[in-house]
Amino acid sequence: MPEAIDLLVLNAHLFSMRGEGVGYIANGALAVRDTRIVDIGLSRDLESRYQAAQVLNADQCAVLPGLIDAHMHSRYALLRGVAQDVGHWMQGALTPFSQHLDPQASHAGTRLNILEALLAGTTTIGDFLEPYPGWAECFLEAGIRARLTPTINALPQTGMAGWEIGALYPLSEDAGKARLDHALAFCDQCQNAGEGRITTMLGPQAADMLTRELLVQTAREAAERQLMLHMHVAQGDREIEQMMKRHGQRTPAYLDSLGLLNEQLLAVHLTEADAHETRLIASRGASMVVCSGSIGIIDGIVPPALAFRDAGGRVALGSDQAAGNNCNNIFNEMKLTALFNKIHYRNPEAMPAWEVLRMATIEGARAIGLGDQIGSLETGKQADFILVDLNCANLSPVIEEPIRNIVPNLVYAASGHEVHTVVVAGKILVSDHQPLDLPVRSIRAQAQQQAERIAAAVIRDPAHRQLRLMNAMATECL
Amino acid sequence: MPEAIDLLVLNAHLFSMRGEGVGYIANGALAVRDTRIVDIGLSRDLESRYQAAQVLNADQCAVLPGLIDAHMHSRYALLRGVAQDVGHWMQGALTPFSQHLDPQASHAGTRLNILEALLAGTTTIGDFLEPYPGWAECFLEAGIRARLTPTINALPQTGMAGWEIGALYPLSEDAGKARLDHALAFCDQCQNAGEGRITTMLGPQAADMLTRELLVQTAREAAERQLMLHMHVAQGDREIEQMMKRHGQRTPAYLDSLGLLNEQLLAVHLTEADAHETRLIASRGASMVVCSGSIGIIDGIVPPALAFRDAGGRVALGSDQAAGNNCNNIFNEMKLTALFNKIHYRNPEAMPAWEVLRMATIEGARAIGLGDQIGSLETGKQADFILVDLNCANLSPVIEEPIRNIVPNLVYAASGHEVHTVVVAGKILVSDHQPLDLPVRSIRAQAQQQAERIAAAVIRDPAHRQLRLMNAMATECL
Repeated sequence: MPEAIDLLVLNAHLFSMRGEGVGYIANGALAVRDTRIVDIGLSRDLESRYQAAQVLNADQCAVLPGLIDAHMHSRYALLRGVAQDVGHWMQGALTPFSQHLDPQASHAGTRLNILEALLAGTTTIGDFLEPYPGWAECFLEAGIRARLTPTINALPQTGMAGWEIGALYPLSEDAGKARLDHALAFCDQCQNAGEGRITTMLGPQAADMLTRELLVQTAREAAERQLMLHMHVAQGDREIEQMMKRHGQRTPAYLDSLGLLNEQLLAVHLTEADAHETRLIASRGASMVVCSGSIGIIDGIVPPALAFRDAGGRVALGSDQAAGNNCNNIFNEMKLTALFNKIHYRNPEAMPAWEVLRMATIEGARAIGLGDQIGSLETGKQADFILVDLNCANLSPVIEEPIRNIVPNLVYAASGHEVHTVVVAGKILVSDHQPLDLPVRSIRAQAQQQAERIAAAVIRDPAHRQLRLMNAMATECL
Repeated sequence: MPEAIDLLVLNAHLFSMRGEGVGYIANGALAVRDTRIVDIGLSRDLESRYQAAQVLNADQCAVLPGLIDAHMHSRYALLRGVAQDVGHWMQGALTPFSQHLDPQASHAGTRLNILEALLAGTTTIGDFLEPYPGWAECFLEAGIRARLTPTINALPQTGMAGWEIGALYPLSEDAGKARLDHALAFCDQCQNAGEGRITTMLGPQAADMLTRELLVQTAREAAERQLMLHMHVAQGDREIEQMMKRHGQRTPAYLDSLGLLNEQLLAVHLTEADAHETRLIASRGASMVVCSGSIGIIDGIVPPALAFRDAGGRVALGSDQAAGNNCNNIFNEMKLTALFNKIHYRNPEAMPAWEVLRMATIEGARAIGLGDQIGSLETGKQADFILVDLNCANLSPVIEEPIRNIVPNLVYAASGHEVHTVVVAGKILVSDHQPLDLPVRSIRAQAQQQAERIAAAVIRDPAHRQLRLMNAMATECL
């Protein structure tokens, strides 16, 4: 007598990501009860074994674990495209806009970003923001999984006015303590919300933006709560300059001296990490997030993901921020990570498709500390998966032997728009490319309205004439 | 009394690409009669001036000139994804498959490629193939514009069996002459087919694959017919090695000595061109095609498009081939060209969005010798244009001032799936993302069937065990 389940996926090109490769199963099937995968195998076996309330025919689809975007600043979706093609992107292009990101605008940006990510097959987002009211609710509304990381720094709450480039940041113990308290309250409140889909980390913004005491205290609070630290590490020359001036050490050595290079650290960017530092961080068991698109656009740099991986480290992918990326799409990050490394090493064999697919799934899940819950399709894991339509012209034809072309095409030819169905925790969130529960039109309208409000505020500020892209406007290049 | 026209596009974010920038017109409109643009301006003006048989409301759309893919080997779409992540991709991965590309398979591949390109907003294709029966008809069927370039080389018609790496290619005057005759017959027959949408060039495959006499004769025949030469130039170290052995010169100097570096040359790749050679080719007035995705994947190299442009040369974009690119999508090429150059020069200001958008439109049109016909939206030019839906989550919100974010987002955030409408020579080919005249299902089925036939032939050949990706299959990485 067949067993009753909620959802049965049949006839898939199934990439389970089990084992060391991509764990392919031809004519694969997936059985789901409630939020979890209860079986995986051949369609003909599972078809007779289960009676499902709902069946998804994944014929001519690739079925993959939902993609993991380990590092995102979601609210910046509201400022998509205002800060690229310039040096000093943050001061010269982004800040005049981002200083107006109030809670309403942040809310609009986060919702837009979740919508974008979901449509492109992202099922877990590692969001990194100073908490605003309603932040977690955006993820609850969408049904998507999230690792929410409240930002902690000790920069003055009144802003950085008066600070000059080259001077030490004016760190404030009080401001830092207030942010830590705020972050802890957020984590205590939101951890395991949404039937466990929402979990948290603590987010020291960067080693140069906290006092030593605040960083140590943050780490202690994290350890007490068994939370990971999610932190920008060696993200730019300014960070290194601040660290040398204040602590006489570069960031990796400093973190190591504090005992913070360990499995509980998710280290983002490593833009400025040298070969020794990269190996050090990896060898201590910390994980890395590589944000290829963002760092490529804003810095013209290829972060050392390949070296980190070669040193035995786990690497996740992140889309960072849309102000200068300009999208939050893990298909994009897979492609760019593979290609940038080929170019960086002038070696077409560097960073093959399957490696970046693992970074987007099982390696990413392990990096963010959810390797036992998501990232591969295995019995007992959360049912987070996507169906990708291989009938799209840019993914056709499908060749299975002697060379299976699906994974290379998912990485080098897909863009995310081929994602047909998205399931998180057993619930179908996107079907036939359409979000089932999100009010798409109002999300877009809210984002447009808030963006226009911010743009108007920027125009009212005479400082906007200093924006680095004003010349491009004047010469009709935008 | 309003003038009668065929098509009126209203309310667009219109990027005309006139002038030196992107020629933006807010609330722009475009009037089309028969195949041509008869007016461009503000919606309120054109609305009262014309009575149109059909009106396209482009509200919340960007309207751009149709994108130009200047260099493609369309039939390889059939072998999408069989040859990447390897060294020696051609011998070690592609040739065991591509040797089976007979006319039927080529036909299936070309049709698939046109479908893919069209859906992503490409309206002109510079296809480069050894002519097979029905080649031009694929483009006529689709209504797309094409510059068809029959390949000419002097390699033995019986294949390269017996040739060993390092030896001179066994060039055959007879084979070369036969291919030239074939090419000339093709050009004479197809030039200006499809009411002028189909035009031709002559395609010496590469300087090392023709005898000097054959190359000179090809150039003479081209000049007589006022056809351009479309040619791979300095595309790899093997070419340079062959050139040094046979002619004692590297390719650029050799072509210059023959008087072939001129405005009638479309030089593809320049992968191995040094700084001096790059400047030489540009300074002689020849144009360059940069195939960023393809060369990035198969060689890990960033071709010298920026240096070529800095030397005053015209640069077009090309998607090359899908066996190892793995897509034919000019949005992809715009993004990769901008990003690869930022990384190559470690400079976020290198190759800004507007420059690659010009390469995909007006610069590309000039490079392929059609600058007076297409590439910008101007009165008298062909009505080739696309509507891109800015409502897509990944292109929202739209900010118009103080910084207009549309062009950066078209380059860094769009993937091509946002293309809503495609018009070529005044005819709507794609509407609401759907091709109106192409039999999508049968094109896909034909491609799948032919790909399976080829895959079966490869499996029957024991040589397939030497395929460089067999190890990835064995270790479950594909």
